[in-house]
Amino acid sequence: MKKRLFTPGPTPIPEHVMLTMAEPIIHHRNPEFGEILKSTFENLQYLFQTKQPVLALTSSGTGSMEASVANFLSAGDTAIYVNGGKFGERWGNILKAYGCKAIEIKVEWGTAVTVDEILAKLKENPETKAVYITHSETSTGIATDVRAITKAVHEKSNAVVIVDGITAVGCMELRFDEWDMDCVVTGSQKGLMIPPGLSFIALSERVIKMMETSNLPKFYFNLKKELASWQKTDTSWTPAVSLFIGVNESLKMIKAEGIENVWKRHEKLSRACREGCKAIGLKLFGNSPSYAVTAVNVPEGVSFSDFNKILKFKYGVTVAGGQDHLKGKIFRISHLGYYDDFDMVTMISALEMSLKEIGWKFDIGSGVAAAQKALCE
Amino acid sequence: MKKRLFTPGPTPIPEHVMLTMAEPIIHHRNPEFGEILKSTFENLQYLFQTKQPVLALTSSGTGSMEASVANFLSAGDTAIYVNGGKFGERWGNILKAYGCKAIEIKVEWGTAVTVDEILAKLKENPETKAVYITHSETSTGIATDVRAITKAVHEKSNAVVIVDGITAVGCMELRFDEWDMDCVVTGSQKGLMIPPGLSFIALSERVIKMMETSNLPKFYFNLKKELASWQKTDTSWTPAVSLFIGVNESLKMIKAEGIENVWKRHEKLSRACREGCKAIGLKLFGNSPSYAVTAVNVPEGVSFSDFNKILKFKYGVTVAGGQDHLKGKIFRISHLGYYDDFDMVTMISALEMSLKEIGWKFDIGSGVAAAQKALCE
Repeated sequence: MKKRLFTPGPTPIPEHVMLTMAEPIIHHRNPEFGEILKSTFENLQYLFQTKQPVLALTSSGTGSMEASVANFLSAGDTAIYVNGGKFGERWGNILKAYGCKAIEIKVEWGTAVTVDEILAKLKENPETKAVYITHSETSTGIATDVRAITKAVHEKSNAVVIVDGITAVGCMELRFDEWDMDCVVTGSQKGLMIPPGLSFIALSERVIKMMETSNLPKFYFNLKKELASWQKTDTSWTPAVSLFIGVNESLKMIKAEGIENVWKRHEKLSRACREGCKAIGLKLFGNSPSYAVTAVNVPEGVSFSDFNKILKFKYGVTVAGGQDHLKGKIFRISHLGYYDDFDMVTMISALEMSLKEIGWKFDIGSGVAAAQKALCE
Repeated sequence: MKKRLFTPGPTPIPEHVMLTMAEPIIHHRNPEFGEILKSTFENLQYLFQTKQPVLALTSSGTGSMEASVANFLSAGDTAIYVNGGKFGERWGNILKAYGCKAIEIKVEWGTAVTVDEILAKLKENPETKAVYITHSETSTGIATDVRAITKAVHEKSNAVVIVDGITAVGCMELRFDEWDMDCVVTGSQKGLMIPPGLSFIALSERVIKMMETSNLPKFYFNLKKELASWQKTDTSWTPAVSLFIGVNESLKMIKAEGIENVWKRHEKLSRACREGCKAIGLKLFGNSPSYAVTAVNVPEGVSFSDFNKILKFKYGVTVAGGQDHLKGKIFRISHLGYYDDFDMVTMISALEMSLKEIGWKFDIGSGVAAAQKALCE
């Protein structure tokens, strides 16, 4: 059985990238690896649309999230974070682990935070040093307007805005320099199309300055040290060599496609996915769909577990279920990374065939037709 | 040109392990990956010769080193560390980064610390909570008697002994339970024969108890959380899936060879390397050779850079130079991981042919003959 992964990380890896990573290992202090680092670092700047440093750490995305707390803030500093899902919640947990004053903006799962909510909380807490937000909340499929929030926060305060872009970078429009962003983090197994194990962090001059005075303990994730290594086209610690070789290849693919085309492709695929779902009577979850992942309500009377068994074991298609209190209530279809039109046609087709089998009533083929229509627009 | 890596990490990767890692990615919360974790966790216990937990973190070895400070100690705690090379020095840097009182035992590079030196320092600092040592100091090729030190420290104090086993595990004899060890860390690109990006940490009941009261900040490297995940055959954060798939394969190879045979093979290869070097008139560096890496003095009048250019670009053989004040003074040959008799013959042969070319006087073939003799013993 052919297996197909539609989960928001790990995402499918292009075949030639997999094979490149399987080539004999090279030493990370050799000129040959230096060339790989050089091109990787340059193309990461292209990906983030920035001339600022984008550092690469050997860790999951959470490592870069932690780095953006431990390196910018000092003990007792106040920071606001938006909790609208599992990953927003994580910002709060990291801030608390480092003894910062963590002010929560709790938004209902499935809802995007508004600029006004953030400004109101900033007004209440004028000592706030940083606002931690999530561009695409993977647990709910919700996108946040990071551009508007960054602009508003900069207008009204001296706080920096730190963005978890883990399922957004290489998927949704993001222009680090033009939007005057402060810090964005991402991981390797998302829009970057390689296995998990690397994370990336883009740094503005504002946060680089904050790194000078930050007094929180750090060692492996010491960004000042990592930035000095980056300036010499090097890494502070032994890098995950094979993953760097992989990301160098996948970044070349992104460059060749053109970042704006990559964003457009994700917008189109996500629209096709939503239209396909709606056409067979499924209801979408949330008010602000991310282009990375579509969250769909499990219909009344349908058991996700039964339906998912057919999808997975009969048709070889893996989607993600809901997390925490959304378990069994939603499921999530990813279109983040190495996907094209026909992957979406396949996905909607597998959805139809599985739902048919458990007795859900709809016109077979109507979902695929709607998806195709969206793809042709 | 065939290229051959004789560096102490990354080390060569077995071909079938490379290809297994290139298979289509799977999701890390699938039962299929659960099976991989289960067998990996079991075989890690075999590797460390322990029934205690051996956790796997997505980071270089330095990440696990940091974890063994941030999770066991509390602010202001006293710890002794042995600085006999770059990696011993790193223990001190981590301790200082976390605000611990770091007491240094400075030993000359190339010399192994003695039990007496450690006991003397412990007597001066009876409040010491932990002693941080290095089993095989990669920068100097020096092995430390971790068994004797652990035993002596336990007899004379309540301090735990934390071992950097990064180039020792899967190479030099190590029996975690029988030797009553407290904590050993290692990395994936050494004796474990896969690319860098994973680190491993074995925990005794003593250090697990210390984790309960440690008040240093941590999040990504929170071992209490990671231990709870391990107990459910899971990982706290998205793991480096392809590297786990790789290490699962390489651990099976170690199991099939038998850990005692793996240790014996490294002892034999390192002896062959030393005998080969001595037979052509090279002098070894240091008083206590590690089985992972042989450090050789660059002879008077020989330029390492000239010699290394021939070795590397004419013969495709990469060795490691000296670090810091040993730069240009020593070079290091690795026999750690996926090496056999004929790799050592090749290495000594390449050494001979390169040295001949720069005018070093010796009987061509005498190094290889001595190495072969050692291999046949």
